[in-house]
Amino acid sequence: MAARLSSAADYEGLLDKYETWMFDCDGVLWHGDRLIDGAIQVLDLLRSRKKKVIFVTNNATKSRKSYKGKFDALGVEAHVDEIYGSAYAAAVYVSSVMKLPKDKKVYVIGQKGVEEELAEEGVSFLGGTDPADVTLAPFSLDDFTLDPDVGAVLCGLDMQINYTKLCKAFQYLTRNPDCVFLATNEDSTYPAGGGLLPGAGAISAPLRYALGRDPISIGKPASTMLDCIKAKINFDPTRTIMVGDRLNTDILFGQNGGLSTLLVLTGITAEADISGPTASSIVPDFVTQSIGDLRVVAAAN
Amino acid sequence: MAARLSSAADYEGLLDKYETWMFDCDGVLWHGDRLIDGAIQVLDLLRSRKKKVIFVTNNATKSRKSYKGKFDALGVEAHVDEIYGSAYAAAVYVSSVMKLPKDKKVYVIGQKGVEEELAEEGVSFLGGTDPADVTLAPFSLDDFTLDPDVGAVLCGLDMQINYTKLCKAFQYLTRNPDCVFLATNEDSTYPAGGGLLPGAGAISAPLRYALGRDPISIGKPASTMLDCIKAKINFDPTRTIMVGDRLNTDILFGQNGGLSTLLVLTGITAEADISGPTASSIVPDFVTQSIGDLRVVAAAN
Repeated sequence: MAARLSSAADYEGLLDKYETWMFDCDGVLWHGDRLIDGAIQVLDLLRSRKKKVIFVTNNATKSRKSYKGKFDALGVEAHVDEIYGSAYAAAVYVSSVMKLPKDKKVYVIGQKGVEEELAEEGVSFLGGTDPADVTLAPFSLDDFTLDPDVGAVLCGLDMQINYTKLCKAFQYLTRNPDCVFLATNEDSTYPAGGGLLPGAGAISAPLRYALGRDPISIGKPASTMLDCIKAKINFDPTRTIMVGDRLNTDILFGQNGGLSTLLVLTGITAEADISGPTASSIVPDFVTQSIGDLRVVAAAN
Repeated sequence: MAARLSSAADYEGLLDKYETWMFDCDGVLWHGDRLIDGAIQVLDLLRSRKKKVIFVTNNATKSRKSYKGKFDALGVEAHVDEIYGSAYAAAVYVSSVMKLPKDKKVYVIGQKGVEEELAEEGVSFLGGTDPADVTLAPFSLDDFTLDPDVGAVLCGLDMQINYTKLCKAFQYLTRNPDCVFLATNEDSTYPAGGGLLPGAGAISAPLRYALGRDPISIGKPASTMLDCIKAKINFDPTRTIMVGDRLNTDILFGQNGGLSTLLVLTGITAEADISGPTASSIVPDFVTQSIGDLRVVAAAN
């Protein structure tokens, strides 16, 4: 059973125990463009205690650099090398794990964030935001030339998903030998404008269905994301805590990586998901209502 | 094991045994815009023997009326009341099985065929080919007004699928109480231009994934399509044969309905799918290379 944190001593204990704090962002630090109460103070508290702070997001629509702009706009201190996104992790996976040869390319279903991170890693790509592929014009195989150098299809959240992109990706995945099917992440939905919209997993779903097979997924809960972080910074998993609002991404990600986990209830997960007859089988180590709750420590000091 | 037909006596036996002949079209009678050799002669032979001929297609992009245009263009005799499409069956399902109240509407992800059949059945709809929904412009919940009268979302093959349609459909399916999730059919792919493209099942897949549940599917192999045919014509299932090129749609459809089944190898199914270690568990009663093979009877008479 998850430990419910409530007293200043509970939070003080947590602060003592963990030296590296990994945060999901949306639903934990903010909701869209609205900060969660106390988030900034708690991050400041962690930094003042010399904790290592890492931001781990499945949002693949933005590169780390442009995601930093989001922190800046909300007045949250963050450095690009503290930010790990699924677009970045996917680009690192393509260049360093798959070791895609330099003369090969990635066909992208996704937005600028994916393209920017691939470019940063020196990976060639096509599709994505190319106006030729951002179209609702009819797709015909007669007008399509298969590029034999496409060695992977990478799918992320793409709000300009369309049939041309799906058809091209499907051709590469069925006609180019050994073409690898990758997804930045498999979130079924994401919070936006006070509701939920279909997430990155829904964008790769047509290919998954047409192919009858699943992509290699890079973002949380997959360990690929943690491998990326490990390659860049040192941390002791036994003294690291993952803070998130989603059981099947954030909390499972922490558990898969041998980290401790703290669930906050300011995002996707509701009380009914963690207690009672409808509770999930994924159980975090700790639960608190909001990341802002940790302010009690600052106040107590 | 499926019986392989080869001699004139084999085909003559089939003609004697079955009085109602149901045909899938693409991959059986034609490939895209190219007739299968002998298809017209075999259909003429069946008509000359007073057989009942029915065309059963999962193609939901065309209404029966416009699908008849395809027969006409290829010089194949067909009458609208012999044609059963999944768009028609879906419209009948909404009006006669679901009995959607007259003041309720269907949100359509699909093309003209679905809209025309819904209109023919007197069902109100929105989405579909409405220019407001055929867009790659960003979707925002702030600009969206939920129509409380949407009682079903119907998904068919839609070559203008986009994020706005997916988001709207997702809102109706999660926020309108009892909104029913329907699919014209679940074909993973369909043949086009000498290759395969993602099919109707791939178009409903994002919603399926985001919702975590499957639609009620109307077309082959579901029995809903056969219920539609039964409502219009009399036939004896024991004297009816379904001819198709796909095991998991056509042949399964026949079997689900207690019909005999004839597989042709001019479409999706290859020899390796029906014999040897990779054979499917769906076994047709009869197999022949092509519908044109039945010409041997005409020649022998």
